Amino acid sequence: MVSPTDSFRGVIPPVITPLTTDGELDVASYAAVLERLIDAGVDGLFLLGSSGEAAFSTDARRREILAEGMRIVDERVPVFAGVIDTQTERVVAQARTAQELGVDALVATAPFYALGGPEVVERHFRVIRERVDLPLFAYDIPVCVHTKLEAAMLLRLGSEGIIDGVKDSSGDDVAFRQLARANAAAGRPLALLTGHEVVVDGAYLSGADGAVPGLANVSPEPFVEQWRAAQAGDWDTVRLLQDELADLMRIVAVTSGVSGYGAGVGSFKTALQLMGVIRTNTMTEPVAALEGENVRAIAAVLEEAGLL
Amino acid sequence: MVSPTDSFRGVIPPVITPLTTDGELDVASYAAVLERLIDAGVDGLFLLGSSGEAAFSTDARRREILAEGMRIVDERVPVFAGVIDTQTERVVAQARTAQELGVDALVATAPFYALGGPEVVERHFRVIRERVDLPLFAYDIPVCVHTKLEAAMLLRLGSEGIIDGVKDSSGDDVAFRQLARANAAAGRPLALLTGHEVVVDGAYLSGADGAVPGLANVSPEPFVEQWRAAQAGDWDTVRLLQDELADLMRIVAVTSGVSGYGAGVGSFKTALQLMGVIRTNTMTEPVAALEGENVRAIAAVLEEAGLL
Amino acid sequence: MVSPTDSFRGVIPPVITPLTTDGELDVASYAAVLERLIDAGVDGLFLLGSSGEAAFSTDARRREILAEGMRIVDERVPVFAGVIDTQTERVVAQARTAQELGVDALVATAPFYALGGPEVVERHFRVIRERVDLPLFAYDIPVCVHTKLEAAMLLRLGSEGIIDGVKDSSGDDVAFRQLARANAAAGRPLALLTGHEVVVDGAYLSGADGAVPGLANVSPEPFVEQWRAAQAGDWDTVRLLQDELADLMRIVAVTSGVSGYGAGVGSFKTALQLMGVIRTNTMTEPVAALEGENVRAIAAVLEEAGLL
Amino acid sequence: MVSPTDSFRGVIPPVITPLTTDGELDVASYAAVLERLIDAGVDGLFLLGSSGEAAFSTDARRREILAEGMRIVDERVPVFAGVIDTQTERVVAQARTAQELGVDALVATAPFYALGGPEVVERHFRVIRERVDLPLFAYDIPVCVHTKLEAAMLLRLGSEGIIDGVKDSSGDDVAFRQLARANAAAGRPLALLTGHEVVVDGAYLSGADGAVPGLANVSPEPFVEQWRAAQAGDWDTVRLLQDELADLMRIVAVTSGVSGYGAGVGSFKTALQLMGVIRTNTMTEPVAALEGENVRAIAAVLEEAGLL
Repeated sequence: MVSPTDSFRGVIPPVITPLTTDGELDVASYAAVLERLIDAGVDGLFLLGSSGEAAFSTDARRREILAEGMRIVDERVPVFAGVIDTQTERVVAQARTAQELGVDALVATAPFYALGGPEVVERHFRVIRERVDLPLFAYDIPVCVHTKLEAAMLLRLGSEGIIDGVKDSSGDDVAFRQLARANAAAGRPLALLTGHEVVVDGAYLSGADGAVPGLANVSPEPFVEQWRAAQAGDWDTVRLLQDELADLMRIVAVTSGVSGYGAGVGSFKTALQLMGVIRTNTMTEPVAALEGENVRAIAAVLEEAGLL
Repeated sequence: MVSPTDSFRGVIPPVITPLTTDGELDVASYAAVLERLIDAGVDGLFLLGSSGEAAFSTDARRREILAEGMRIVDERVPVFAGVIDTQTERVVAQARTAQELGVDALVATAPFYALGGPEVVERHFRVIRERVDLPLFAYDIPVCVHTKLEAAMLLRLGSEGIIDGVKDSSGDDVAFRQLARANAAAGRPLALLTGHEVVVDGAYLSGADGAVPGLANVSPEPFVEQWRAAQAGDWDTVRLLQDELADLMRIVAVTSGVSGYGAGVGSFKTALQLMGVIRTNTMTEPVAALEGENVRAIAAVLEEAGLL
Repeated sequence: MVSPTDSFRGVIPPVITPLTTDGELDVASYAAVLERLIDAGVDGLFLLGSSGEAAFSTDARRREILAEGMRIVDERVPVFAGVIDTQTERVVAQARTAQELGVDALVATAPFYALGGPEVVERHFRVIRERVDLPLFAYDIPVCVHTKLEAAMLLRLGSEGIIDGVKDSSGDDVAFRQLARANAAAGRPLALLTGHEVVVDGAYLSGADGAVPGLANVSPEPFVEQWRAAQAGDWDTVRLLQDELADLMRIVAVTSGVSGYGAGVGSFKTALQLMGVIRTNTMTEPVAALEGENVRAIAAVLEEAGLL
Repeated sequence: MVSPTDSFRGVIPPVITPLTTDGELDVASYAAVLERLIDAGVDGLFLLGSSGEAAFSTDARRREILAEGMRIVDERVPVFAGVIDTQTERVVAQARTAQELGVDALVATAPFYALGGPEVVERHFRVIRERVDLPLFAYDIPVCVHTKLEAAMLLRLGSEGIIDGVKDSSGDDVAFRQLARANAAAGRPLALLTGHEVVVDGAYLSGADGAVPGLANVSPEPFVEQWRAAQAGDWDTVRLLQDELADLMRIVAVTSGVSGYGAGVGSFKTALQLMGVIRTNTMTEPVAALEGENVRAIAAVLEEAGLL
């Protein structure tokens, strides 16, 4: 098995979940997505993240996504599993399933729906780690959970070995820089991964250990190349690749009349369908698949990028 | 069986979930809480709501709470079941379990964690109703789900028979009054229940069909008496009872160093333990039970109210 | 002079500011609005509040609104003056102008634009009172200033004689009830006025000492009648008048394509123009006057209410 | 006069406003701050910005700050003036004063206190520009005004010559990158300045034309050096200087018991006092000056940075 400790670095895309038109997991399309990412040289894969529509999927579907994913990946790269649920006991239940299926690391958010302040958040991560013995990443995503994870808490948990890293989707690059500085001063107990595909270059300057870019589903190679350039200190390449990727990310912005996951993950799925990687751009209820003018607008961006 | 249509009115407390010190369901204490509420003359019971710590409980625990509750209640009053989960497919799964266990009505929030705008919210309720044939209440609780349910949508869903009522915990009494006026003008397709135990009197003036007061766990009789006074137009009694209940609600405010469910539901449990109704004030992870000075402060309020 | 101490009760409308088509103060229309309110029996007038577009008006215009208002009112009822500005020194400057013009009381919000926590808010009110010797109301309007005034602070300031009352536009009726209960227990150091014209009845049940209803610009008599009914304990009349007023408040909701002050104060001005009380419905930059379908929709509501 | 068009680039610090212990403008200290910044080679100066405590200052004080600043700077670098006020007419009044005093460019936020949607925001900037003929920067600072300026609007206003640039303090680096890409595609009608001193390096990678770093009050030279390195494509220097500056920025984070401007600008003033540049760290009401342990903590950070 790949050692997770060496592998919490680099490009680790959050994998989308292709569906058939009647909403079942499209295993063949899923395999195509995964093979394409592995072929591009990614350093790991993140299943059941936000891009994977974990929040929309039943427990049975989550298990299926993870089980099929583990089978297809077959230990070629480490697999991170999102264990997205409201509170500790429910997250532990998700984590035990993931552990049983052999994943390499868990990714858990702060508690949500019911909020209770920072002590409760810290206890949440401690209890998860105590009950499930797997590397654990804290997923900082206030837009979904309405709590920002504090740097001091993250470092304390890292130093004590409760968490192994942070997946930062906070949109707060100032806080990320300060976390990176404090982590460096503390001897780097945490692997710091950015989830913001449009400013990965800035995150690498800030000291990020890798990226979890949803857009890599559509175009993985530039992210892999960018990571290697960052490792080599070739910042002009890092920056120019980022500009290209930012332009490609307009597939999300050119849609109209939709918001949230319908626009975001919906655009990734639509692009992959247009590119022939997956068969449908079906989303999980209650989100509708993109159609008509929105599909045409995405196709135009892909053409400009040379992907169609 | 009690006919739900006649019964979506009056006082319908959201029942707390007593636990043993090691976190298991304390069935004897649970029965004591339920019997006390039924004896007080409540018009229905709401299991697996926010006060019931549904968000903190695993699916197995949720099923246990519902199954034991149905057994104990034994059709003496109608039972509403919360089906709290992130998105449609997961809510449908919760709803099927509740239906199987024989509940009289479902209570579902807007989607949360991932937000997608009003069309997505409306579709969410439509799909739930289509897949599970039970009376359905929309639970308007933006503090948890970060979406306010719009009056126009609620009325449209009510008029089409998709939803049967609204449990309003929005804290927006202006919107509630306007919803009540529009509902009256439309022939009252919706039963409107307020979740704000401190201003139930104002909600009754506004035209509410009942209340879902968490504080009724501690002191149910005044809420029952208040509802009867409101039905009789005896507003001075309604108001004076409300003042007493507002004073009792200080059990939540006198705690310090805790927030959210630890303060709210934690105070209800602590009061019930002090009053000898339940055995422990244990909360579900990651929330700690109240102790020390906080318990003494709650005891003082209960004494002032003549409940100790 | 009217004694402010006796007069911080009852119906105290926040007066709109009529403008000519080229944006100057329309003194004749302003006098018509003020005379109509005084004739209806209001207990006071609030100039330079939110409905008065204080936030949109230059200091010179604010002075003109206040000076003309004082001249027209001529001590027949007490005048409250809003002193809306970002921080303490600027509010003090506004307050000195108001004092010079002879107003009876000041109304100040928490600091805004730059926030600094509760100690800073408390110091703000203390410094204002120290520098300008006039009765002072705290204006609780988090939707504008993004700070909620805490009950404990308000009571402390009231007990020490720093503030004389609260104008509550917080939309948090639970907090208002608890403030009213605590104020009663402390011997009523604060006059509590509600700014929510749609649920004044609930606020009166909660113990409010009066109301500051923007809608009274359009229809003052029912608010005056409602206050008298509340004083007499005739709650059915209070409630039925409130239902009528809630229906009339739909003039704000029937507009489309506008939000904020354009819809709110814009509707009040449009209604008054339609009713022949003022000459134009011009708003202060950057807000456009309502026109076309929006005006027709407001006219329809006024007709239903028998006001056209 | 310096041509503003050539000069909207580079390092343009938002200058703090030194006060005497009794709260008057300390002109000698102010001159020391300004001379130190000009000596360090900054490309412009921003007076009456957030760091300048404009929001806290009366109109008379604002005029004094600007007049003294213009006299001291004496056309050696271009001066930007903040015209921070609630709504259009008030901003225009501020802008006319600034124009009269000879500033080179204006910086205006979206309307605040009363919000009205995107059309109203756009009209706001159009009216300001129409009434005051000076280069105009849009100041994107949602934490203060609770509106995010949309990229499409900014580009439209830029292309039409209504605004000349954007000062971005939005904290949204994803939006900033996309704005920079769209601005490049449109022929760079806008000068884009970042206000986030902790991640200026990422902003330069994104294509920023300069920075407005409050921390430059304390340590200007590294920002000047960093800008020159960025112009030369020496990204490793850019990054390493940023790491140092991020560490220095801990002067804000090491304080406790204060928040907002008390911590932010308060730390800058305290550092400058400790370094002997200004005489007091007095803040404008209602913000208290830092003292005791907070001062010692700031001193420790300055010592680590070699600034004491």
